[in-house]
Amino acid sequence: MTSLLLRNVRPMAGANCDILVKNGKIAGLGRFEPEPGMAVEDGGGAIAIPGLIDAHTHLDKTTWGMPWHVNNRAAVLRGRIDFEREHRTEIGIDPHRQSMRHAIGLAAHGASHIRSHVDIDTTHGLSMVEGVWKTREKLAGIIDIEIVAFPQSGVMVMPGTVELLDEALRQGCEVLGGIDPCGIDRDPKGQLDALFALAVKHGRPIDIHLHEVGDLGAFTMELMFERIRANGMQGKVAISHAFALGMNDYLRVGRLIEELAALDVAILTTGAPSATVPSIMRLKEAGIRVGGGCDGIRDTWGPWGQPDMLDRAKVIGMKNGLRSDNDLAHLLSVVSQGGADVMRIEGYGIAEGCNADFTLLTGETLAHAVVDVAPRPLVVKGGRVVARQGKAVVDMP
Amino acid sequence: MTSLLLRNVRPMAGANCDILVKNGKIAGLGRFEPEPGMAVEDGGGAIAIPGLIDAHTHLDKTTWGMPWHVNNRAAVLRGRIDFEREHRTEIGIDPHRQSMRHAIGLAAHGASHIRSHVDIDTTHGLSMVEGVWKTREKLAGIIDIEIVAFPQSGVMVMPGTVELLDEALRQGCEVLGGIDPCGIDRDPKGQLDALFALAVKHGRPIDIHLHEVGDLGAFTMELMFERIRANGMQGKVAISHAFALGMNDYLRVGRLIEELAALDVAILTTGAPSATVPSIMRLKEAGIRVGGGCDGIRDTWGPWGQPDMLDRAKVIGMKNGLRSDNDLAHLLSVVSQGGADVMRIEGYGIAEGCNADFTLLTGETLAHAVVDVAPRPLVVKGGRVVARQGKAVVDMP
Repeated sequence: MTSLLLRNVRPMAGANCDILVKNGKIAGLGRFEPEPGMAVEDGGGAIAIPGLIDAHTHLDKTTWGMPWHVNNRAAVLRGRIDFEREHRTEIGIDPHRQSMRHAIGLAAHGASHIRSHVDIDTTHGLSMVEGVWKTREKLAGIIDIEIVAFPQSGVMVMPGTVELLDEALRQGCEVLGGIDPCGIDRDPKGQLDALFALAVKHGRPIDIHLHEVGDLGAFTMELMFERIRANGMQGKVAISHAFALGMNDYLRVGRLIEELAALDVAILTTGAPSATVPSIMRLKEAGIRVGGGCDGIRDTWGPWGQPDMLDRAKVIGMKNGLRSDNDLAHLLSVVSQGGADVMRIEGYGIAEGCNADFTLLTGETLAHAVVDVAPRPLVVKGGRVVARQGKAVVDMP
Repeated sequence: MTSLLLRNVRPMAGANCDILVKNGKIAGLGRFEPEPGMAVEDGGGAIAIPGLIDAHTHLDKTTWGMPWHVNNRAAVLRGRIDFEREHRTEIGIDPHRQSMRHAIGLAAHGASHIRSHVDIDTTHGLSMVEGVWKTREKLAGIIDIEIVAFPQSGVMVMPGTVELLDEALRQGCEVLGGIDPCGIDRDPKGQLDALFALAVKHGRPIDIHLHEVGDLGAFTMELMFERIRANGMQGKVAISHAFALGMNDYLRVGRLIEELAALDVAILTTGAPSATVPSIMRLKEAGIRVGGGCDGIRDTWGPWGQPDMLDRAKVIGMKNGLRSDNDLAHLLSVVSQGGADVMRIEGYGIAEGCNADFTLLTGETLAHAVVDVAPRPLVVKGGRVVARQGKAVVDMP
């Protein structure tokens, strides 16, 4: 079923109209009568926006739907990484089952696209990626999943990882990941040279986790800028978290942002409340592409999060101190259009000719909708209804 | 109905037992048979904790349940204060109706007690307090409400306010409020001298809003410490927000915390994600009484928040970077026992002889329960069931 007449909705909180879908695309916005045999839905006057996008998450590592994972371990990043790698199998975090739960949860809450980092390391090889690939196949038509080959345990510090990343890209991972070249790898030149060489070899974009704060993170960004220029990778690099952009040095941050804009580097934020985070309004002023993501939800790292991009928008919005309706409307665009900008999704939007991927939201205005975090009345993917009232049409395993 | 047999619960996530209630008090924890005519409830194995406590909120100013309030005004504190005072009546923010909605929402989500700051100013006099008093009467037996006479618009900068605060305390407001003696009043000596004189005159505690950050807030705290010593008000002062304690100066903050402990000053936090906030774990180590609060929810100041202390615990917990089960259990105590410590609530707790004020929580452990933010299965106040599955027994007006 890829044809649909969705009546009585307000695209982007504008005037009430119908959305006509044919062959999985939006055939028109206006007033229409159904063709024979066409599915018809009443949107009840709800707001319609393009599908929400979780542009930074970790489908392979959630414990969602599993028994509560008790965690009283020390709060050390390297310890979290090693504990997870060493114990994920015995804990029972099956990457296919868990990525199914996570992705179905996101779809149920209105998401149409996911960019997921998936762990690749010398203990598990590509098995996490294989689990998520299986999920991607099973959820085809429900939600699109893009996979970042992610060296969670480090690159240079874990010999053999470069070869695994090479193989993952060869097998079809869309994006190359990386992580804290200084903080985790202790060898920023080594990791960044290796990553950029792989990206160039496979013609793939880079999306690197950068938790490094202050001057350290700024230094790593500068090393990235040099390599983007040297390799002609303008427009093909994203930095996730980018905590250094939250440092309290207005001018220094301004110079970093100028470079991000000049090199068309995208930023992905999760609004981490306890960290220093980039200002989404300052990035907007500079014309930077910015998406949002849930990050890990309820995993061995920490208990917070849920598979819902409006819940995440609330976290990002509160952390950014957003209050005005105009800013809240922008917040909603970060977790929708912003993700599409980062992932370069073709045909994204609510207009004739766009993909028929959209979600309904309750609320009077876009600001009201993003603050309310109410169940999504209806979620449509490729013209097919995939969730109603917060419940997906497919069951979680 | 103040007698009740609540079967099959786990007090504080411990061993399964029954809670026997007689005359509004807990008569015992163990296994019991109902007496003739006694109400019996099955807790379904849920966790039971004492009632949640919203120890810092603003019942008189929410727009909850009203049409969405569009706000594109400048983000200036003085502007927010003045806009609200000048326009709240025309917007239709009736303090009685709105405080009913807010308080019933809190009760529906498991709260047994509220400390609400209520605006007192030279435009509206005591009319906001009168509206909330009416709510307190109507909700007697559902939720307890303590009122702080709160000079939202300033004290010295709004002549006539001291006299109104004096009258409010005379009429029975339990606590004297204050706000940013430097930032709002531009006269820290003036405001603090006036407040401490009123508090001494009426024998009432003080709970002051202190948004002042860094060295400015630290200065104001020092002025407060001097007056607490001079007036013998040890144990009778609370500081709400206390953003200065979130400044990035470990030793300076340590000296302030030593003084807080020495003078038994309580801290109330809302975990404001975009601000610098006190570390609840550091305050715990110092033995400081710490409660949590929702602050304003969906008002003319900003759109965020909802009447649910577990939702607020999530905000406080994420902002404080809490992840371990032990820390999450402490987080739950901040929004329950911590509020009772600050408000000096007698008979609070789950033990024989305590008030029969408790809420059931779903989840395997205390940490799981505070992270899950699921509907509360059952809420009991004074032995009476006041909410089931997130729905109060009284309707919102």
